[in-house]
Amino acid sequence: MSDTPDSVVRTYIDTHRAAFLGDLADWLRIPSVSAQPDHAADVRRSAEWLSAKLRETGFPVTEIWPTAGAPAVFAEWPSGDPAAPTVLVYGHHDVQPAAREDGWHTDPFEPEIVDGRLYARGAADDKGQVFFHTLGVRAHLAATGRTTPAVNLKLLIEGEEESGSPHFRALVEERAQRLTADAVIVSDTGMWSEDTPTVCTGMRGVADCEIELYGPDQDIHSGSFGGAVPNPATVAARLVAALHDEDEHVTIPGFYDGIVALTDRERELFAELPFDEAEWLGTAKSRATLGEAGHTTLERVWARPTAEVNGIGGGYQGPGGKTIVPSSAHLKLSFRLVAGQDPDKIEQSVRDWTATRVPAGIRHEITFGAATRPCLTPLDHPALQSVVRAMGRAFGRKILFTREGGSGPAADLQDVLGAPVLFLGISVPSDGWHAPNEKVELDLLFKGVETAAYLWGDLAAHWRAS
Amino acid sequence: MSDTPDSVVRTYIDTHRAAFLGDLADWLRIPSVSAQPDHAADVRRSAEWLSAKLRETGFPVTEIWPTAGAPAVFAEWPSGDPAAPTVLVYGHHDVQPAAREDGWHTDPFEPEIVDGRLYARGAADDKGQVFFHTLGVRAHLAATGRTTPAVNLKLLIEGEEESGSPHFRALVEERAQRLTADAVIVSDTGMWSEDTPTVCTGMRGVADCEIELYGPDQDIHSGSFGGAVPNPATVAARLVAALHDEDEHVTIPGFYDGIVALTDRERELFAELPFDEAEWLGTAKSRATLGEAGHTTLERVWARPTAEVNGIGGGYQGPGGKTIVPSSAHLKLSFRLVAGQDPDKIEQSVRDWTATRVPAGIRHEITFGAATRPCLTPLDHPALQSVVRAMGRAFGRKILFTREGGSGPAADLQDVLGAPVLFLGISVPSDGWHAPNEKVELDLLFKGVETAAYLWGDLAAHWRAS
Repeated sequence: MSDTPDSVVRTYIDTHRAAFLGDLADWLRIPSVSAQPDHAADVRRSAEWLSAKLRETGFPVTEIWPTAGAPAVFAEWPSGDPAAPTVLVYGHHDVQPAAREDGWHTDPFEPEIVDGRLYARGAADDKGQVFFHTLGVRAHLAATGRTTPAVNLKLLIEGEEESGSPHFRALVEERAQRLTADAVIVSDTGMWSEDTPTVCTGMRGVADCEIELYGPDQDIHSGSFGGAVPNPATVAARLVAALHDEDEHVTIPGFYDGIVALTDRERELFAELPFDEAEWLGTAKSRATLGEAGHTTLERVWARPTAEVNGIGGGYQGPGGKTIVPSSAHLKLSFRLVAGQDPDKIEQSVRDWTATRVPAGIRHEITFGAATRPCLTPLDHPALQSVVRAMGRAFGRKILFTREGGSGPAADLQDVLGAPVLFLGISVPSDGWHAPNEKVELDLLFKGVETAAYLWGDLAAHWRAS
Repeated sequence: MSDTPDSVVRTYIDTHRAAFLGDLADWLRIPSVSAQPDHAADVRRSAEWLSAKLRETGFPVTEIWPTAGAPAVFAEWPSGDPAAPTVLVYGHHDVQPAAREDGWHTDPFEPEIVDGRLYARGAADDKGQVFFHTLGVRAHLAATGRTTPAVNLKLLIEGEEESGSPHFRALVEERAQRLTADAVIVSDTGMWSEDTPTVCTGMRGVADCEIELYGPDQDIHSGSFGGAVPNPATVAARLVAALHDEDEHVTIPGFYDGIVALTDRERELFAELPFDEAEWLGTAKSRATLGEAGHTTLERVWARPTAEVNGIGGGYQGPGGKTIVPSSAHLKLSFRLVAGQDPDKIEQSVRDWTATRVPAGIRHEITFGAATRPCLTPLDHPALQSVVRAMGRAFGRKILFTREGGSGPAADLQDVLGAPVLFLGISVPSDGWHAPNEKVELDLLFKGVETAAYLWGDLAAHWRAS
């Protein structure tokens, strides 16, 4: 059944385990926080480090691709077989902001292994999941005796995913000739749990904005003026409160227009998963569910759009009280989007809705970041079966199906390259993406290595793109 | 008509003007910010400075009265006349927080005189208005040839007014024997404008609270979990939005219970004032009025209670975006109260209302500061006429009547001492209380000195307390 001896793959991985982890730790030490301008040099250093490491891995072509923002890394390793399919692996080398005082038990940029878990910002999102492809392709070669991969292998590892990939689509359009592929493998998602390996079939998109609200020219005395002028902090709060109705439906006109509804088959697939609300709440570090009426929790996070407050602020923040009407307030909002929603239309809807709700005497400014589109993998795509088989061999279990509530620029790759997008991720919900104490489970990280080691042979053997 | 030659008073004030301003500047340099624990030593230093200065002024008794918080200053200067009324002057020596980066053009604790205005935190609120009594009583003595004031003069200058006077009532109760007075003169309010001198007849009270809202144990990924768990920042915003209905009435059950309604006479007095909305908005640094339906702007700020957001915060505050559901959020709210409202009942109403509105999965904590009660001066009180006459001589104009939207512990003095409370203040709305670039108009400051110089003789001549 298999074209690669599994025991050879496993032995190879075990032999190179320590060196692999040492290299990954070196990469994780680079604080490549793309959202913070003072880390721009670190993001560049991260790209240079990865490029050198991919060259060392054996990729004959490694390049750093500049963008109007942070650079991406491209690598290519041709198969040599003219009939072999071409696969593009996507990931990112930038990370979310992290500071020790946010609640980290260790320095977020000094990786530590505790009880089989590697703790660091980026351990799971996404450096660890990019990095398993390096040892994966080496194990593939070692087990097959090949000197080149069975597929034409390309990697595109961007540097602005955590900032909403503002220049990614332009980069893909500009470099489309170099990026041509029969399939895209996205390694920037998770699976159900350590015990229930899954393949993800879709991601939500995201649009985000900041709204600044300006009232009095300066903070004014709430005794002398309070009750007679509009308070921008109150206006900010009223905007947030008006985002949802009592059923937690988003109230912005047009928000749900064009949404692709869940099919019965998709609902059945969701229902096959061993969902346990108490356990899920534990992972969410939360004590109760709350969401859109008429939908299950999984439907809410995977297949329904949201309007979320990521940050709100205004007025006095120090100790004690200060009896003022504040001069300004701000909101950071994000909107998760599902298939059928157009980020440009969402932006216009939010702008129109906000303008109608801000009262006289308050000036407002809205700034949208670059949006990420939602995407869905066709359930019947043959390449999906290769991923499922490779995972099945690595995990020794039936592979189920999920979606991903988070967002990535996979839809841009699908649009520009005209290639189907598949998801290969080994992160689990407890990994703490975007949170303090992010980690990756080492067992799963090496299952990722192993899956990658099987995948290229399976794809070459079972699938030719049209 | 007058018992004191006005020209002698004015000459005396002019002669001592420079020394008076130099002394006041020395006091203003002490950053006596009672709300910030790291300024506790400065608040003590401010009390010591004032005590020494009052001794130098001639008060034979000056004492620093410790409290469970910041110390107050007490001073006493008996008349020697057994029939003389006893007057207690109230003010405070602590100030609001201030930092240059808040928008000050100068160091808030390095006083500067520009175009006849003295800029410093505390210039108007309240050090300047306390300090005019020092030169005032000296001018009174100089003009009358007395060696003691015509009234038994007491000063009580507290150190926690800007923190809601948490220990003031206990201090007044403890020291009630020393504080006995026939009338209380509060010098911690303002007047209509430089051109329209007024006497204030009441102040709003204030109750304030902080509400902490706790959701997930840590910030969680808004893609993985958003839309399915309650967001504490959203809950904070919904609380704020629910505080008012569409007519800007406060919705908390019981909030308006027991309020003493405005009389027709009071509405007429308000209407005598040359209110100009555009000018008022300029002072409020605002561009539109917004407030409770059915009331004028003056009624809203002087005679109607409010619910105001002084601060709101939660989630990511840094540059760029961060796609999280935040783990916590907080509100700083304050409620202005009018005659008839009981702060204890208001606190309970807010607690009950909040508890019913916080959803499952969000834990909340409410902390109330010490409340300040509202108070009203009877319009027909004879001592009020002495204040009006003294001001009339100093200003050479008809004195009109206002109320004060701000709050002070005057009601505690009225309650505990059983004495009527009168208001003598020379600050104007543009002075920027609690705001950057607080200032006092020097012309008005010296009218305050002059009023004080006339007041003690007028009171002794025209009024005996029952």
